[in-house]
Amino acid sequence: MARRTSSAYKSVYSSRRRAVFRLVAARVKASALLVSKPEDVGYLSGFGGQDSWLLLGRRWACLITDGRYAEQARAECDDVEIHIRTGTVVAAIAEILKGRGVRCLVLQADHVTVAQRRDISAALPTKRVKPVSGLLWTLRRCKDAQEIRAIGKAVRIAQEGFRQMLSAGAKGWAGRSEREVAAELDHRMRLAGADRPAFDTIVAGGSRASQPHYLPGSTKIKRTDAVLVDWGAMAGGYCSDLTRMVFLGRIPPKLVEVYEVVRRAQRAGILAIRPGVSCRSVDLAARKVIAAAGYGEQFVHSLGHGIGRDVHEPPVLAGSSRTRVRAGMVVTVEPGVYLPGVGGVRIEDDILVTPSGRRRLSSLPRSCEATVLR
Amino acid sequence: MARRTSSAYKSVYSSRRRAVFRLVAARVKASALLVSKPEDVGYLSGFGGQDSWLLLGRRWACLITDGRYAEQARAECDDVEIHIRTGTVVAAIAEILKGRGVRCLVLQADHVTVAQRRDISAALPTKRVKPVSGLLWTLRRCKDAQEIRAIGKAVRIAQEGFRQMLSAGAKGWAGRSEREVAAELDHRMRLAGADRPAFDTIVAGGSRASQPHYLPGSTKIKRTDAVLVDWGAMAGGYCSDLTRMVFLGRIPPKLVEVYEVVRRAQRAGILAIRPGVSCRSVDLAARKVIAAAGYGEQFVHSLGHGIGRDVHEPPVLAGSSRTRVRAGMVVTVEPGVYLPGVGGVRIEDDILVTPSGRRRLSSLPRSCEATVLR
Repeated sequence: MARRTSSAYKSVYSSRRRAVFRLVAARVKASALLVSKPEDVGYLSGFGGQDSWLLLGRRWACLITDGRYAEQARAECDDVEIHIRTGTVVAAIAEILKGRGVRCLVLQADHVTVAQRRDISAALPTKRVKPVSGLLWTLRRCKDAQEIRAIGKAVRIAQEGFRQMLSAGAKGWAGRSEREVAAELDHRMRLAGADRPAFDTIVAGGSRASQPHYLPGSTKIKRTDAVLVDWGAMAGGYCSDLTRMVFLGRIPPKLVEVYEVVRRAQRAGILAIRPGVSCRSVDLAARKVIAAAGYGEQFVHSLGHGIGRDVHEPPVLAGSSRTRVRAGMVVTVEPGVYLPGVGGVRIEDDILVTPSGRRRLSSLPRSCEATVLR
Repeated sequence: MARRTSSAYKSVYSSRRRAVFRLVAARVKASALLVSKPEDVGYLSGFGGQDSWLLLGRRWACLITDGRYAEQARAECDDVEIHIRTGTVVAAIAEILKGRGVRCLVLQADHVTVAQRRDISAALPTKRVKPVSGLLWTLRRCKDAQEIRAIGKAVRIAQEGFRQMLSAGAKGWAGRSEREVAAELDHRMRLAGADRPAFDTIVAGGSRASQPHYLPGSTKIKRTDAVLVDWGAMAGGYCSDLTRMVFLGRIPPKLVEVYEVVRRAQRAGILAIRPGVSCRSVDLAARKVIAAAGYGEQFVHSLGHGIGRDVHEPPVLAGSSRTRVRAGMVVTVEPGVYLPGVGGVRIEDDILVTPSGRRRLSSLPRSCEATVLR
């Protein structure tokens, strides 16, 4: 059944596998790649389960899973071999490699643990084992058409949940706890099609918004609060990541200027994005606006990060980055100013780098940033 | 503020740190331990944030975090040093170790990646680095009083969400999708105090329950379905993990016998638990019941696993286990029989091993297993 319906996807996965194998072969001859990071296994095979590894050779690929996922693997992966292991993963690897002429097994150095590497080396005494860093990111940081559609869907689901919160918000968020508001937003995203939230949703009212990674507690939201909401959906294996300020009444006087500065900084950051520029120059474009307004010290994090199967991926939009912006990257642009004891402002959108510039995947209206709930 | 209110917790964390350091010192002299697994960092310090590591010496402990978590770290950890890094974690480690007389840094071999180990070794040229496996599990697999209370709370929250689903179920689950029912259960747990679900909730109707790790889809639940629900709450850093069968009408004839067999197997498994017996004998006690009824081949997974900060922890109740049951362990007992094309039955409770035997932490009434919704 999967074979009939997924021919387009089949070619996507096999062409990704060919591309990653070219990178491997350029470094190490007569090798196979062991893919252990679950997001990479999904990227290269379409498999969405857990506890499963992908072994990749020049003209073959084999998913190593167990009985719990046998049916799912057969439905989702129609052009890779499926090995249902009954012993350890390492024993399965040794068995699969027999007679394939592999002289070196390449491992994902950023994911394989020291203990796993030791066990693998012990099981493959006649073969070399070579850990390599960042192989998959070389491909994954630029998204293909299927991935851009999937991220777009995750963005729409997150927006749908948020829009419903605002329209249902006639009764007001005031008097409800941050935790309740976060739980309802998550639930609405779920009903709109999310598999789960992409990360723990942040709902921070009043002065609590000065903590960039505040987790919603039992504190009740006040009628006069500015509320920072940072949320995203995970759907079909891809993430979205958005932030909006919700003002229950007027914008608090101490935040009026900051809010304008952050809006301008975000616009400057987004407009700086185009293929070929450095990631640090994008960070700088936004940071300059905030620094010029005197809030440079209060912008305590980098401007943004890639999103995809992971909610934080390369590239990072930061002063320390050495990467250049390339078409197909999808990044957050999320400047923020945090004033301890007063509050915080952050605005975040998801931006696709196009051959000619950029496209905002998120379509929440600008005015939504300052929605006044009735 | 934290200093005044958390003296009891303070002693819990420092006594855990002393215990783990005794294990380290018994193996490696003049050493420090780098704790990188987030659940272990929380276990030893009380810190609940992310991206933070704990460095542990004979008479000192230092949490390495960054600006995003500065306020949270100061509030949650009052008896460890807090190092707010601006550079890399590895640079912070090198700086903190200066002048402390440490000659060997012990790493968590089951968590540190090959790339991290390489970076750490390069930054500490004059010191030895020694990866060790399983250090923390030696302590964590037996829970102390604070942990047992926390797991008990996670169990109560999961049960509260489920009870509400049943009582609100007057309108019936029939006609709703599995995904909707799972989303509502998750939401009710959240409102009852969960930080999030402990894992992706399984709601599998009819024949789909034959897949042990089925994920709820858009299929509508039928009025005649037997529905397998496997769910748990994460609260205060601890997990619960429960499974019940919900029969919307009568028990389907093909499952009547299987249901009785699984109930008897679960009782036998629970009654076999007491300090000193082997984990494999507990697995066998339940498995024998199922095998005697002729369903041995359809019980495709192990009987249970430890729960705590991780939803799957040591020990495993399985034929391959070499561990003995000890007081303070908290394990699931979850026999199941899966009949492809027909359906599946699993029943799961969370059991604390006491000095004299066992105590069921979950208190859902037995009859709940076969609740007939009106």
